[in-house]
Amino acid sequence: MKMNNFRSMLAVAAFGFLSVAASAQVKEDFKPCTSNQDGKQYPMVNSDRVVRAQYLAPDAKSVKFDIGGVKYELVKDENGLWTGETAPQDEGFHYYQINVDGISVPDPNSLYFYGASRWGSGIEIPAADEDFYQVKNVPHGETSEVYYYSTVSGTVRHCFIYTPAEYRTNTTKKYPVLYLQHGMGENEYGWAQQGRTGIIMDNLIAAGKAEPFIIVMDNGLANLGQQPRPQGQRPQGAPQAAPQGQRPQGGPRLNSAGAFGDCLIKDIIPMVEANYRVIADSEHRAMAGLSMGGMQTRAITLANPTTFSWVGMFSGGVISPEDVAGAAGFKENVKHVFMSYGSREIERPRNGSDPRTSADDLKKIGMNATFYVSPETAHEWQSWRRSLYQFAQILFK
Amino acid sequence: MKMNNFRSMLAVAAFGFLSVAASAQVKEDFKPCTSNQDGKQYPMVNSDRVVRAQYLAPDAKSVKFDIGGVKYELVKDENGLWTGETAPQDEGFHYYQINVDGISVPDPNSLYFYGASRWGSGIEIPAADEDFYQVKNVPHGETSEVYYYSTVSGTVRHCFIYTPAEYRTNTTKKYPVLYLQHGMGENEYGWAQQGRTGIIMDNLIAAGKAEPFIIVMDNGLANLGQQPRPQGQRPQGAPQAAPQGQRPQGGPRLNSAGAFGDCLIKDIIPMVEANYRVIADSEHRAMAGLSMGGMQTRAITLANPTTFSWVGMFSGGVISPEDVAGAAGFKENVKHVFMSYGSREIERPRNGSDPRTSADDLKKIGMNATFYVSPETAHEWQSWRRSLYQFAQILFK
Repeated sequence: MKMNNFRSMLAVAAFGFLSVAASAQVKEDFKPCTSNQDGKQYPMVNSDRVVRAQYLAPDAKSVKFDIGGVKYELVKDENGLWTGETAPQDEGFHYYQINVDGISVPDPNSLYFYGASRWGSGIEIPAADEDFYQVKNVPHGETSEVYYYSTVSGTVRHCFIYTPAEYRTNTTKKYPVLYLQHGMGENEYGWAQQGRTGIIMDNLIAAGKAEPFIIVMDNGLANLGQQPRPQGQRPQGAPQAAPQGQRPQGGPRLNSAGAFGDCLIKDIIPMVEANYRVIADSEHRAMAGLSMGGMQTRAITLANPTTFSWVGMFSGGVISPEDVAGAAGFKENVKHVFMSYGSREIERPRNGSDPRTSADDLKKIGMNATFYVSPETAHEWQSWRRSLYQFAQILFK
Repeated sequence: MKMNNFRSMLAVAAFGFLSVAASAQVKEDFKPCTSNQDGKQYPMVNSDRVVRAQYLAPDAKSVKFDIGGVKYELVKDENGLWTGETAPQDEGFHYYQINVDGISVPDPNSLYFYGASRWGSGIEIPAADEDFYQVKNVPHGETSEVYYYSTVSGTVRHCFIYTPAEYRTNTTKKYPVLYLQHGMGENEYGWAQQGRTGIIMDNLIAAGKAEPFIIVMDNGLANLGQQPRPQGQRPQGAPQAAPQGQRPQGGPRLNSAGAFGDCLIKDIIPMVEANYRVIADSEHRAMAGLSMGGMQTRAITLANPTTFSWVGMFSGGVISPEDVAGAAGFKENVKHVFMSYGSREIERPRNGSDPRTSADDLKKIGMNATFYVSPETAHEWQSWRRSLYQFAQILFK
C-alpha cells in the first residue's frame, strides 16, 4: 500500500469527483498496460502514470477501480460504458481489484498474482528504469516448480528455484545459493512472478554485473508446524498431508521466523544441497527477504550466525551493532549486510529508529554494509525489484 | 464444453427455477472445492457433483454462476446473500466465471487458469479415479519455466519443461522426450497447471508404471511467424521482440500446424536437445496433444514421418491407414499411435468418421495402436488427464 497516495487521495476521493475532475487535465497518451491479458485494451496508463479503466456493464449501478487504498468511481455513459481515471500511481507493480455493485472481484482484463492474501489483479506501471526487468534475447536461466517433503511440517511443500542459464550445460560447476523470501499476504509465487527474479538475474548475468547463483523462493507461511488449524483456513475434509491442487493451499498462518527458520534449516537447505550443484558452505549461502521476509531474514540469520554470510533485508528492518553483539560469530562470518527501503516509506521510520544510519552503524564495528533507498517508491514491489537488482551485484563477490 | 450437460440443462435453466427446484432434493454433503483460494468455503461440491455457490452482494440485482455453457441464477436472501446450485458436473476440471449485474468476471474465490482464451476461474469436481493426479509424498520431478529465442518467430518464447525426480541426481543418464501440446484457447500453462502433468508423472514413475522421461509443454499459438498482427492482440507500443511480462502475452493466433511445426522442428527440439540430457533420436521422441494440439500432432508427425516414433492424439482426430500410406517412413518408424476421446464426445463422431475403429484399422496394416475412451467425460480436461495417464504407460517401452 502506498501510504502517501492514500493520504493525499482520500480527501479527493471522498468527494467522488476525481474521475471527472482529472479528465479535464489528463494527458491523452494512454497505452494498454503490459499486465493486461492478451488482447485487452484496458486498463491503460499514460505518461503521468494515471490509470484509465473501462468496462461495458449497462445493468450495473456502480463500478469502482480499487487501487492503492482508494476506490475510484467510474462514470457510466449512455451506452452503459463505465470509464474513469485514478490518481498517478507509483512506478512498478501494484495489486488492485474492481468493485461491481458492492462486490469486489478480479478485473477480467488483467493477469493474476498472489498478494494481499489472495489471487487477484495486478498492474504494471511503466518505470524509467524498467529495462532491468524486461525479457530480452539473452541466455535465460529457468525457474523450476519444486515439490518436496518437509519433516518439520509433515507435508509436501512447494517452492520455486531459479538456476542460471549456464547451469544446464556447465555440468560440473557448483553454485552459491540465495534463499529469498516474500512478504506478509504473499507466497512463493511473489518473487517468481511479480518480483521478476529470473528475468532480473538473466539480465544481470548477461551483462556481467552479477555472479551466476541459484535462488530458492519458498513459502514463509504455509503448511508449517502441527498447530491447530484456524477455522476456515483449509477446505473441510481436505487431507492435511498434501497440497490440494497444482497450486497448494496454505495452512496455518505462522508469521514466526522460528517455524519457517526450522523448516529452512532442517528441510529446505538440505533438499537444495542434495539435489542441486551447490557450494554448501556459509560463504556461498545468502538469505534475503522483503517486509515480513526481511524480518524473518533478520531473525533467522542472527539465530544461525555462522550459516549465512550474506544478509539482505528489503523494507524489513535492520540489523544493529547490538544485534551483532548478541549473535556470536555473526560479525566474523557475515561478508555483507544489505538493507533497503522505498523512499516514501523511510520518511516514516519504523520501530522508532531511523534505518538510514544502519549501514554506517555496522561499518563502525568493522562490517561491510549497504543501505539502499529506492527512489519515489513506497512499501511495494518496485522497491523490492530494485533491492534485488542492487543486492545481486554485491552477492558472492 | 460438455454438450450433454448443455443440452439437458438448457430447458431447465430457461425457466430460471433450477436453483430453487434443485434445493429441494440436493444432498447436503457439500465440501469446499479444492480449487478454491486458501480459506474460501465457496464454491462447494456435493457427492452428486452439484456445485453450490454463494456470494454476499446486497447491492447487486443479479448474480449468475456460468459453467458448462449454462448461466445458473443465484437467489438473494434478506441479508443480500446470493446462493444457488448447478446441475451435476462431470468429474474433473472445468472453466467457469460469474456474472454480476451483466458483467462477467472471475470468481474471487477460485484459483485461476488459462483457457477459453482468458485467465479466469477453474473448478475441480471430485473424481472416483482422482488419486492418479493428487500430490503425494513420492519423489518429485520439477516443472521448469523456460525462456528461449525462436529463430522462426524472431521472439523470445516461453515453455514449461518437466524433468523426472531422478534427473537432478542421476547426472549421466539421458532421457526420452515427449512434446505435449494444449488445445485451442489454451496456452503452455494448460498441461503444467490444470493438466497436472508433473504430478501424474511423479505418481506413475514412483509406482513403476512409466519410464522416466522429459515433457516439453510449449505454446502452439502465440508469437509465431511474422504475419501482420491482428488489431488488439497486443498492447500498442509494446515491442514485438519480447513477451510483455512474466507471463508473456500471446501474439497472432496461428492455428496452423505449419507455423508451430516449423518452430517445433527448428527451435524447440534443438533447444531441448542442446540443454537437457536427451536421447536425441526418433525412437526416444514423442509428440502428443489435446484437441487442436492433437490435430497439430497428427499434421506434424505425418509431415515429419521419421522424427517421432510415438504419437498421441487426445480428442483431436485420428490417423488412418490412408494417412500412413501418404507419409513415407511413418509406418516403419512409429512404435505406437495412441488415440482417445471422452465417452460423451465420441457419441458425436467428428469429421464424419467414427474414431472407435481407428486403432483396429492401424493394427490391420501392422502398426501398434491404442484407442482409449475416458468414461463419462466430454471434451474436457478429465479426458486429457486420463489420456496422458494411459499414454505415459505405453511410451518408450
